[in-house]
Formats: sequence, C-alpha cells, structure tokens
Amino acid sequence: MTEELTATIVHEIIQKRPSNSHKGDFGRVLIIAGNQQFGGAGLMATAAAVNAGAGLVTLATDPVNLTALHVRTPEAMFIDWHDDAELSSAIEKSDVILIGPGLGTDEFAIRLVKKTFALAKGNQRLVVDGSALTVMAQNNLVFPLNVFSVATPHQGEWELLSGIKLAYQDNMSLNNVQRSILNANTLVLKQHHTIVMSDQREFQLKLGGPYMAVGGMGDTLAGIIAAFLAQFTNATKATEAAVYVHSAIAEQMAHHSYVVKPTIIADFLPNYMVQIKSNLDQE
Amino acid sequence: MTEELTATIVHEIIQKRPSNSHKGDFGRVLIIAGNQQFGGAGLMATAAAVNAGAGLVTLATDPVNLTALHVRTPEAMFIDWHDDAELSSAIEKSDVILIGPGLGTDEFAIRLVKKTFALAKGNQRLVVDGSALTVMAQNNLVFPLNVFSVATPHQGEWELLSGIKLAYQDNMSLNNVQRSILNANTLVLKQHHTIVMSDQREFQLKLGGPYMAVGGMGDTLAGIIAAFLAQFTNATKATEAAVYVHSAIAEQMAHHSYVVKPTIIADFLPNYMVQIKSNLDQE
Amino acid sequence: MTEELTATIVHEIIQKRPSNSHKGDFGRVLIIAGNQQFGGAGLMATAAAVNAGAGLVTLATDPVNLTALHVRTPEAMFIDWHDDAELSSAIEKSDVILIGPGLGTDEFAIRLVKKTFALAKGNQRLVVDGSALTVMAQNNLVFPLNVFSVATPHQGEWELLSGIKLAYQDNMSLNNVQRSILNANTLVLKQHHTIVMSDQREFQLKLGGPYMAVGGMGDTLAGIIAAFLAQFTNATKATEAAVYVHSAIAEQMAHHSYVVKPTIIADFLPNYMVQIKSNLDQE
Amino acid sequence: MTEELTATIVHEIIQKRPSNSHKGDFGRVLIIAGNQQFGGAGLMATAAAVNAGAGLVTLATDPVNLTALHVRTPEAMFIDWHDDAELSSAIEKSDVILIGPGLGTDEFAIRLVKKTFALAKGNQRLVVDGSALTVMAQNNLVFPLNVFSVATPHQGEWELLSGIKLAYQDNMSLNNVQRSILNANTLVLKQHHTIVMSDQREFQLKLGGPYMAVGGMGDTLAGIIAAFLAQFTNATKATEAAVYVHSAIAEQMAHHSYVVKPTIIADFLPNYMVQIKSNLDQE
Repeated sequence: MTEELTATIVHEIIQKRPSNSHKGDFGRVLIIAGNQQFGGAGLMATAAAVNAGAGLVTLATDPVNLTALHVRTPEAMFIDWHDDAELSSAIEKSDVILIGPGLGTDEFAIRLVKKTFALAKGNQRLVVDGSALTVMAQNNLVFPLNVFSVATPHQGEWELLSGIKLAYQDNMSLNNVQRSILNANTLVLKQHHTIVMSDQREFQLKLGGPYMAVGGMGDTLAGIIAAFLAQFTNATKATEAAVYVHSAIAEQMAHHSYVVKPTIIADFLPNYMVQIKSNLDQE
Repeated sequence: MTEELTATIVHEIIQKRPSNSHKGDFGRVLIIAGNQQFGGAGLMATAAAVNAGAGLVTLATDPVNLTALHVRTPEAMFIDWHDDAELSSAIEKSDVILIGPGLGTDEFAIRLVKKTFALAKGNQRLVVDGSALTVMAQNNLVFPLNVFSVATPHQGEWELLSGIKLAYQDNMSLNNVQRSILNANTLVLKQHHTIVMSDQREFQLKLGGPYMAVGGMGDTLAGIIAAFLAQFTNATKATEAAVYVHSAIAEQMAHHSYVVKPTIIADFLPNYMVQIKSNLDQE
Repeated sequence: MTEELTATIVHEIIQKRPSNSHKGDFGRVLIIAGNQQFGGAGLMATAAAVNAGAGLVTLATDPVNLTALHVRTPEAMFIDWHDDAELSSAIEKSDVILIGPGLGTDEFAIRLVKKTFALAKGNQRLVVDGSALTVMAQNNLVFPLNVFSVATPHQGEWELLSGIKLAYQDNMSLNNVQRSILNANTLVLKQHHTIVMSDQREFQLKLGGPYMAVGGMGDTLAGIIAAFLAQFTNATKATEAAVYVHSAIAEQMAHHSYVVKPTIIADFLPNYMVQIKSNLDQE
Repeated sequence: MTEELTATIVHEIIQKRPSNSHKGDFGRVLIIAGNQQFGGAGLMATAAAVNAGAGLVTLATDPVNLTALHVRTPEAMFIDWHDDAELSSAIEKSDVILIGPGLGTDEFAIRLVKKTFALAKGNQRLVVDGSALTVMAQNNLVFPLNVFSVATPHQGEWELLSGIKLAYQDNMSLNNVQRSILNANTLVLKQHHTIVMSDQREFQLKLGGPYMAVGGMGDTLAGIIAAFLAQFTNATKATEAAVYVHSAIAEQMAHHSYVVKPTIIADFLPNYMVQIKSNLDQE
C-alpha cells in the first residue's frame, strides 16, 4: 500500500550530530555530472550536496565547468572526468556516487556509466539520475549487485526504463519483476506527487506543486539524496527524507516566489535542516 | 486609439498554475544572444526568462559566455552557436525563440537571423530584439509568415526599421503598410512611455522612468516577454503583461535605488509574480 | 584656502533625473583597466561606474577578465584591449574615459596611456588613476590639453608625479607650476583625509577612516568619479561629489564592518544616491 | 598546562585601527594555494584573508583559478604560480606568506614549498597548512629558522608530521623535541576542540562543533590566521585570536544552519570583528 510521506521521516532521519565528529564522518560524495551543454545540472547537484551536509563533495565533470564550480561552490573539489586514473581512484574512495545530471547520452557518457557500475562496491551507495537513466535504458544496463542503488527517473525516463507507458504510470505500482530488472533498491518516481518505492515500503508525497516546474529541480533533488545517503545510516529512509525535504522547502518558498528556482532550495537547506534538529532539541 | 496599459493586464495573464503540470507545460525557450563583446546581454535575457517562469531555457551563444552563464543561471542550458546542427535542432524543438540581445551585426549575426527566420514554424513564437532588428533593417528582412512575432525596437532601431525619423515617432502611430513590411504581430516600441501595438490593440505604459536608463534594460524585457509567451496562451496579452511587469518592478525598486539595474529586476520577478497570483487567490 | 568638503556638494550634484531621458543621456563610460595580474581592479571600477548611474559602461581589458566581468556586472560591455581598431573606436565614442586601475606599467600599458591621451578630444572627460599615473611619471607624460582631466594619485603616486616627498605632502599645497606640469584640471590626492583640488577650489574630506585601508578602494572611487562625470554637468563639482559619496558610504558601512570592502560600497551606491534625491524631493 | 582559549584573546588583539593609516599598515599577504583539482581551497583562504582585514592579498595559484578568484574576491591580486620570477618577487615583498591549501603533493608542490622556505626571511611570518604539511612530512622539511612560523595540521597531517598516532593525540602534549623538529613557533592542532600551542602557552578551544565538518573549513581558518598575522603585532596571540574567531562565528551561525559553510564564516568576519571593536569603544 502506498502511504503518505510525511514530516515524520525528516524528524526520524535528521539528527543532532555527535559532537566529536569530523568531515569524514559525513561522507565522501562523488558527483559525475555536467557535460559541455548541461554543466548547470552538475553544478546544482553539487551545491545541493554541500548544503545538505555532505562532508566532502567532488564533482567529476567536463573541464569547461571548473570555473563555474569554484565560483558557486568553492567547498567542492574538481576532477576532469577525462582523467581515467583520477576518476577511478575517486570512485573507489567515495562513500556515495551520484551519476547522471547533465551527463548526456553519447559514447563517453555510456562509458562513464559502465565504469561507475563496474567499480562500485558493496559498501558504497549509488544514485542514478537524469541522462544516466536513459543510458541504462538504451544500453540494457542494470545496477550493480550488492550496491545500495537509488534511481530517480522522471516520467519519461521511467517509461524508457520500465516499459510502462506514461499514461499508465499513475495507476500502477511497480511489480517485482520490473524492479529486479534494474536491481534498484529504491525508486524515486518523480511526478506531480512523487513516489518513493523500496522493497517493503512505498510512500507518496503530497507536497510540492507547479512552482517546481523549472529546469534543475531534479538535479538538486539528486544532490540532496546523495548527501543524505552519505550522512545517515538507513539508506531507504535517508532517500525518503531527502525527497520530503526538497519539496517541503519548495512549498515554503512558493509563498514568496511564483517559480521556485532549484538554486534557492539548495541555499535554504542548512536553515531548514537546523529547524528540524532544533525541534528535536526541544523534545 | 492608444489606451493606457494598466495592472489589469497582469491580473488577467498571470494565473495560478494547474497543479498537475511539469516543466514542459511552461515552455522551451531558446535565446540566441551574446557575442564576444556583448555577452552580458544574453546572460541578462536568460536570467530574466528563467526568473519569469519559463520551464526550460537554453542560451545559444558564443562559447566565451558559457562559464558566466552557468555561474549566473545554472538552471539554463548552453549551446555553442557555431554548432550548426545543434542550433538547428534547438530551434526546431523550442516553443519560443528570442534572438537579438548582444548579437552584433556582423556576417555571422546575419546568418543567425536568417537561419532562425527560415526554420521558425507556425506553432512557435518569435521575439526579435536589439541587434537582430538592425540586422533586419540593414538586410531588408521581414518576419517569417505564420509565426507569431514580437519586435522590441528602441527608438533608434525603430527609425531604421520603419523609416520614421526619431523626432516624429512620438506623434505618429504605425500605419498598416509599415507594420506589414515587417509582418510583426506585436510591436513593443521602447521609449519614455513604451507603446505596445498589435492588430486590434494599442497600449501605452505610464509606468517607468529615468532610473531605467541603464544598459541591459531591454535585454531583460526581451527575456520576460519570451518567458511569458512560453507560459501563457494569449500571445498579444502575454507580451503586454511582460511590458507592464518589467516597468512595474522597476518603479517599485526605484524607491530604493537611484538607478535600477536590470539584474535586480530579474531577481525580483518570482516575488512580484506571486503577489499577482496571491491577489487572485483572495478574490 | 582648503575648505571642508561637506554633504552640501552631493545635494547640489545628485539631482532628480529628467523623466524623458534615456541611457545615452547618462553617458558612455569607457574603462581601460585590468591586466592579467590585477584584473580585479578593472572589475571593481566597472561595477562602481554601473552602480553610480552611468548609462553605458564598457571595460577594455585583458581577455582573461571577460568572464569575471560578465558574472559580476553583466550590464557592462567588453572590449579586448589588444584590438586596436575596436579600442580606438570606443575611445572616440565615449563621453568619459577612465584609464589606470590595474593597468600595470609595462610597454603595453604605456602604449595604452599614450593612445588614450592622443585620441581624447575636448568634449570628453578623462580620469587617470593607479598605474597610469606611474606610467605618466616614468614617461614624462602630461594630460592632453583641452580635455577635462582628473588625476587620482595616492601618496606614493603623487610623490612620483609631483616630486613632493611623501613626508612633506601634508603640509604643502600644490603650486601652479606643479599642477600645470600635469595639465590636470582636478587633482584628487588620496590620503587619510583626501584633498580635491581644482583651479579655484580646494576641499578636504573629513570623512573616511582606516576601515577603508583595503585593496580596491581607489579603483572603486575612480569608477564613481567616471560615472559622475558622465551624468552631471559641472565636472569639478561632480568629482568632489564622487569623493564625498565614496567615503560617506564607507563611514556608514563601518558601523557594521571592521573593514569595508570596496565591492560593498559599490553595491550600496544606488541606495545612497536615492536617499540624497529623496531629500531633494521633500524640500 | 592547557588553558581554555576564551574571548579574552580577541578583545586583546582586535583593536581600533589608528585613524591615519593606509593599506600597507595592515600587511601584504601572499597565499600560495589551489592546484587544478583543489582550487576552491585557495579561493576560500583568500576570501577569508580579505574579509579578516589584511591590507593587500595576492593569490599565487594555477591559472585555471584566475576567473573564480576575480569573481569571488576582486579585491585580491593574482599571480600565475608557474611564473618563477614573479612568485619570487612576491614572496620577498610579502609580510605574511600562507602556503598549502589545495596545493597537492606532486613534484611542483614540493618545489613551491621548498622555494617558499628558502626565500622567507626573518621579518616575515609564515603559515603552513594542508598539503604543504604533508609535503613537509614526506620530504623531511623543517620550517626556516628565524621566521615566525605557524603550522595548522589536522589530526591526519599531525600524525604524519609528529609520528604521534592519531589514537594517542588526545592524551599527549607535544614535547620539545617533537616541536623543534619542525621549528614551528605555533602549532594549531585542528580537532574536535582545537589546541594552539606555543613556547610558553598552550590553549584549547571549547567552541565549535560538528556543524563545522565541511570541506574548506581549514582553508578558511588558515586565511584568517594569515590576515591576523599581517595586522596584529603579537604573532602568537594573533594566531590564537584567529582560531577563536573562526569557531566563534561558526557557533553563532550554527543557530541558523545545520552545516556552516566556510564561505559563510568568511562573509561574516567584518561584522564579527566590528562587534569586538565596538565593545572596546564602550569600555
């Protein structure tokens, strides 16, 4: 049964940090994103991951995006994604890998997806978003076994991946066969009211609205998911909490904005999260 | 008869969005703008279009402008305007095409205008601004038939296009012959009190003032018009509303600023528009 | 006799703009500034000129500074200062030319100063700042005759130009011989309490303080002077007003900042200037 | 004995500036930092140094970082660190040299550290941070004699430098032998509660917390230390004050932010410092 995804999830997940901790405790996130045309997608995912509290964030991207990265988010590190050895080493050292925002679907993008899936190991977590999902569908790729994997398709990408026509998606839950094709542990089906689906759990957001219909919204969500997976133990619930936070902030912002730019959501993350924590403090 | 353009138009045009909608519903805007000298013009038009609520915005520009685009507006996508195939494909897939801000008038600029006019189709909307208007005048180009076209000349460009000397522009309405030369459906004659002129309608703004006499003001207006044409059905009224919004925000800002920078107007768009919508909510 | 420079000067100079005016009425400012090492100086002068109300601002600079210009101040236009024809044309079309911030003193810098001095005409106004003053001293250059010229040396540059040792500058006024060597119409001697000196007038600021001891402060002042010369008729008084405004804003900001960054002063210009104008409105 | 580092130190160090002073009085800071992968580290250290009140700040870095530097901190100057003559001259003219943030540990980085140590003279102050400390450990380098030197290792770097295993660091003070190996005058041992250790003094912070566990936090601290060493006479106490300020601001910000980004700390420095000075004014 699909239940409503409520604020309970964020209160459960966003905790006070242990006082004697350092940046390694909040995870190394590697984001592989942003080609020469869609660089903004990688930048927005990175800014979201830093603002959502990941300890160390690296963007592996096309070198044309280096300067914009450092201007927007100097906290993040850079890797030229053509540097094969550097990228392999970064994949191996990361706790969470997010691949896909603004990746494109060309030969090089396919190689990046395959490489990532080949190197990912069981103690890592993987988020696959945007064009990486199209790459998967077009090349019959499945998620690596034994790696906790999250897929975040919008409805068009979901149709490609699942074979379920867009018109039928609303009335249909994913059956086990379809899910196992992908090996994804958690599916975030982005739509008017987004659904988050895992082995034993299926939740639907009632938050969010048409003020979120702006390019970059999904890239930002992917960055938040990655950061939450890096910080919080329960991966399924961390993903659900990220989905909730993203739309909850947008809904707040919509009182002041006809459209809510995703960059604004990223900027507001630290403040939203401290409010959740403060509620805990008072309990 | 020229009527006064009042706030009525924005209340008529800026509506609450249907709740089950996605970014495609608010249009794909392609902006062709910004050469090596006037890159800022393309950047300001793009920022305005994103902030005014267009679903997906792409800037086709000289590659020197890529980084500044991603820093200022990561929500927008980039096309190298020398990439002929990529640009053709983008023109064909767009709902609205804005050409002109900071385009220059060299051979390459002429080719871009001709290409755009050749590929534009009847279901698309076209905004022609800045140097693209000079290119039209110098090369005797007219708007493509069957495409809803908006021209946004300032007085010097209008003299070039219409043959009406600047000194006579204030006292003269456009006759049908002059308008048909251009095939433009709507003319936005930018001046102290801007006039918006369509087949059956002619309005004049009483808003705005000398605090708007800053480079980039027209580029920002063009971006807002493009975004409104992408979101709202009635193209004539959408253009009028964009003209109103642009000066209404400037007038508000002028209480706090001796000069109102166009980038500030773009930043304030989401807030202004939500206020209009909220008024609707309360009716 | 040196009088105190007071707020009277800004109330006299910063006027309500005529309502039927356009950007050409507030002047074309060309800023020649910013080599590969000191690009920030050109950027800060440009931002100050735009915020201080110049109608159209162009930065002629090393191409490495193009992207940072467009990010910080998209309202400004760009010229590659190696493009001789483009630069000559821009010099000829400008109302005010500011040369010097971050120019350096190498052969190319010398050529730029000589070229500017050779092309400047009697209806233009010229501001010479920073390394351009060192270039003048080292190459025995004087300002072009018949062009209203402002020099803005700090004490080290003034020693080079005038031959007056730093230790004696406080106790000494400029004699006519020294001033005529330069042909400068107005000298802004930047020091603890800056002096502005013209043929019939000599004023000293009592505003400002050690919170202004930050790199870039002089570049910002130069940009404000250029913008005021572009907008306001009386060139001597416009220069005095610019000097006053720069320190008056810094003094206000110093209540909130141990050091006042020059970029913050530039940001606050439109608001400061509207307050001066509003006082006029109420008289 | 380790004493608690309290607000007393900032009230002792952050003084009202003498009114007749200029930027030279607040020091020339040279920051050697930021390779192609870790450019953000150099940018954050530079922004912190400017905001903390250094008179003139120059970043010697890889040229890929030039544009981001000018966008973020136009007040700072740039040197291409491959330009050997330029860099040597800058080292010689500086009052304070900070080397290390995002430097990397490759051959070129080693050369930069050695060059800096070779050129530093007795009237200068030196801060060594981040990868420069790893370079020291891997190459058995010690600080130059007769130069006041500050080392700012985090616990991993400290293990490399001192040979004290991480697990034992909490319970152990540095003996004279270990300290003399390095020749460092002041050691800032970054950890949950940071320790600042000098010949006669040893203090421990009780401020700060897990909201500071973000990449870039140490780079920002290093920039503040460099700026304080440039402005304030007592080098040991200036370092202690910098350490205090950095965490005191973070603690304030943590009321509004789940994670406190280091760039936010840098932005708040001028305001924090003026509050300290204002307290003095009222005494």
